[in-house]
Amino acid sequence: MAKPRIVIVGGGFGGIKLAKLFAKENVEVTLIDRHNFHLFQPLLYQVSTSILAEDEIAYPIRAFFRDHKNVDFFMAKAEGVDQARNVVLTNHGEIPYDYLILAAGATTNYFGMKTVAEYSYGMKTIQEAIKIRNHVLHMFERAAKDETPIEEKKRMLTFIVVGGGPTGIEEAGAISELIGLQKKEFHHLDFSLVSLKLIEATPHVLPMMPQDLQDKTVEILRKKGVEVMLNTQVVDLDADNLKLKDGTVIPTKTVIWAAGVKAVSFVAKCGAEVDRAGRVIVQENLMVKDAVNKNFFAIGDCANFCHGTERPLPTVAPVATQQAVTCHKNIMKLIKGDQKLDAFHYKDLGAMATIGRGDAVMNNPKMSGFLAWCAWMFVHLIRLAGAHTNLTVALKWSWNLFSGIRLGRIITSIKVDE
Amino acid sequence: MAKPRIVIVGGGFGGIKLAKLFAKENVEVTLIDRHNFHLFQPLLYQVSTSILAEDEIAYPIRAFFRDHKNVDFFMAKAEGVDQARNVVLTNHGEIPYDYLILAAGATTNYFGMKTVAEYSYGMKTIQEAIKIRNHVLHMFERAAKDETPIEEKKRMLTFIVVGGGPTGIEEAGAISELIGLQKKEFHHLDFSLVSLKLIEATPHVLPMMPQDLQDKTVEILRKKGVEVMLNTQVVDLDADNLKLKDGTVIPTKTVIWAAGVKAVSFVAKCGAEVDRAGRVIVQENLMVKDAVNKNFFAIGDCANFCHGTERPLPTVAPVATQQAVTCHKNIMKLIKGDQKLDAFHYKDLGAMATIGRGDAVMNNPKMSGFLAWCAWMFVHLIRLAGAHTNLTVALKWSWNLFSGIRLGRIITSIKVDE
Repeated sequence: MAKPRIVIVGGGFGGIKLAKLFAKENVEVTLIDRHNFHLFQPLLYQVSTSILAEDEIAYPIRAFFRDHKNVDFFMAKAEGVDQARNVVLTNHGEIPYDYLILAAGATTNYFGMKTVAEYSYGMKTIQEAIKIRNHVLHMFERAAKDETPIEEKKRMLTFIVVGGGPTGIEEAGAISELIGLQKKEFHHLDFSLVSLKLIEATPHVLPMMPQDLQDKTVEILRKKGVEVMLNTQVVDLDADNLKLKDGTVIPTKTVIWAAGVKAVSFVAKCGAEVDRAGRVIVQENLMVKDAVNKNFFAIGDCANFCHGTERPLPTVAPVATQQAVTCHKNIMKLIKGDQKLDAFHYKDLGAMATIGRGDAVMNNPKMSGFLAWCAWMFVHLIRLAGAHTNLTVALKWSWNLFSGIRLGRIITSIKVDE
Repeated sequence: MAKPRIVIVGGGFGGIKLAKLFAKENVEVTLIDRHNFHLFQPLLYQVSTSILAEDEIAYPIRAFFRDHKNVDFFMAKAEGVDQARNVVLTNHGEIPYDYLILAAGATTNYFGMKTVAEYSYGMKTIQEAIKIRNHVLHMFERAAKDETPIEEKKRMLTFIVVGGGPTGIEEAGAISELIGLQKKEFHHLDFSLVSLKLIEATPHVLPMMPQDLQDKTVEILRKKGVEVMLNTQVVDLDADNLKLKDGTVIPTKTVIWAAGVKAVSFVAKCGAEVDRAGRVIVQENLMVKDAVNKNFFAIGDCANFCHGTERPLPTVAPVATQQAVTCHKNIMKLIKGDQKLDAFHYKDLGAMATIGRGDAVMNNPKMSGFLAWCAWMFVHLIRLAGAHTNLTVALKWSWNLFSGIRLGRIITSIKVDE
């Protein structure tokens, strides 16, 4: 009898965990991703702010499965699922499956604002992070030139991060420190022209944190020179100006959009019900609701799981990796003919966010300051090390902590018109 | 009295060395480069073959001069020199000078073959190295797909390096090891389809080495699976085929061109005499021949210096850095009113080239094998460390030596039609 063929769409935290679990079973696994690497997304902001190089948070997917010949990687863009025929449609042909798991992740949500999607900088892919790095560094170089008029200098040196979640907080903190570093090296630039704003639509940053840590976070950011604008809504953007709901126009060439995520568009083309954020609705056992055949599952950021919870589970790595464990168990049950599947239960391990060098907040246990930062660093290092075996990150962080230096400040491409 | 204004065009080995020397003098320095980083070019092949990340061999120019407020960096593309008016013309306006030094470096020489320039991959900039990395890795991913016809697979897996100098040798050696690594991770790809060729127009590789080391180099390359084709001339190239002078057509999508260099085109727009390779002719004291005012010098790859030597000095870093010392001394003499300038004398410290992990050749002292490789590694590490203070490279190299792992194998962009 042929081995069951497991197809996984997506090489993020959930997809890699699943493939590692199935690698040890008597099955054939095909992992599909449009990139040939697994991205350690929580550290993407460090690439965008010149702290780490891209190869330190991106790991070749095939390297995970060097010793597992039953796992095959297929580099392609998934375009849909034909449930009736049990095939995934990709830009490089059809991939047949016996069992399918969507772990396709999330993309930036611009909430329908086309101009924002066009002119702002997203924070979800390595390419986007490199674009931010190149652009921000280049703005300093442009502004440093005498030929640039003063109001243009100010526009070039106004950096705006939208979104008060962990990504926005971490990005704003890291940019504020980058500015401090640039100050030492741009001997003739007037740094009173530089400003950094964090815009959040709700009254709070870090919604998963208790009020006092939220306040603490805002306080730390303000001390770092970040202008925190709460209750502030973006309505429009072009190449030169950001427009707020109250009519305010902020001249800027840099809006980094970290205000929300939604499932990638392909998820809606799988013949299953999706929610407003494009996530496929899953049952308690992680099987896709109303799956045509009982062989179609979804986990992580692209799945809407809200059994026993008021809202769908958050789009964070621990949800995806925990769901991978349950999903693997359930599919192995089906393969063995056992129809009684396990329900998924999420164990919330708490949340943490760093606000720059030596400062962080966390809610489990509740902590802030240098100790929380050490905890943050430790947790990220062991997770990264488990996945990437990369000592250079520890080295760069220690270095950065003591010296503030960032070796990654190189501009590898700029727009032709600049 | 205003301080003398020294303008340096180019942030390579020569330009940085010069700026460091002038930083300690009572002068104003402006360093012009189109990139904001100094590139450690001898290790470019390691970025193109996924061993190092780009920020490990590229260092932000401004970081060199953090403590020297008299050195200013100006990111721009130099476009010419108006000697009569003592100004450098750039895409961001004119830069006036009292003393000017061209240290503009070299670019790839395609010897007038337009199709080769269009379809081959150059090896002079960090962007080109990243392009090679992305393309080579992507060829493996494409060839691994069942949908790809067998003759296309073979074409995608035929890698050709043109040029038997150090760059070509090092690139071919590093690709051969990359192929070995890929072999462990592409479980279903037929590696008998993979081939790697090194093409050299003359009868010898490494012209600066004695015959026995040349032979040794060819022997090592052949052992590594590189087909070394000497006395072989390229005449044409398109997206699918390479054409040789003898009429042979080699189906390939990857031709890496390391066959020659010439000065960047801007050098010819400085109103001075240039040689066939576009290099400006300099006097023994490094002043540009027939300079309109006695304040215009040139060093390094963009200068033709052949006093007391049969041919112009080679385009290598030690020539540029040694010339920087003499050039600095001569300009300081002129500033102090001393018209008796020093003649430049090149001290040849020997050449070395690595042919992959644990193997290298060098001519001073004459050596090959593992010891030569250790010497190569040592020399490059201390030079890189002196410039870049980057321990991560030592770490990655040790790792690579023992495990062969290359964490950099990530594809960050591919052509849309692929």
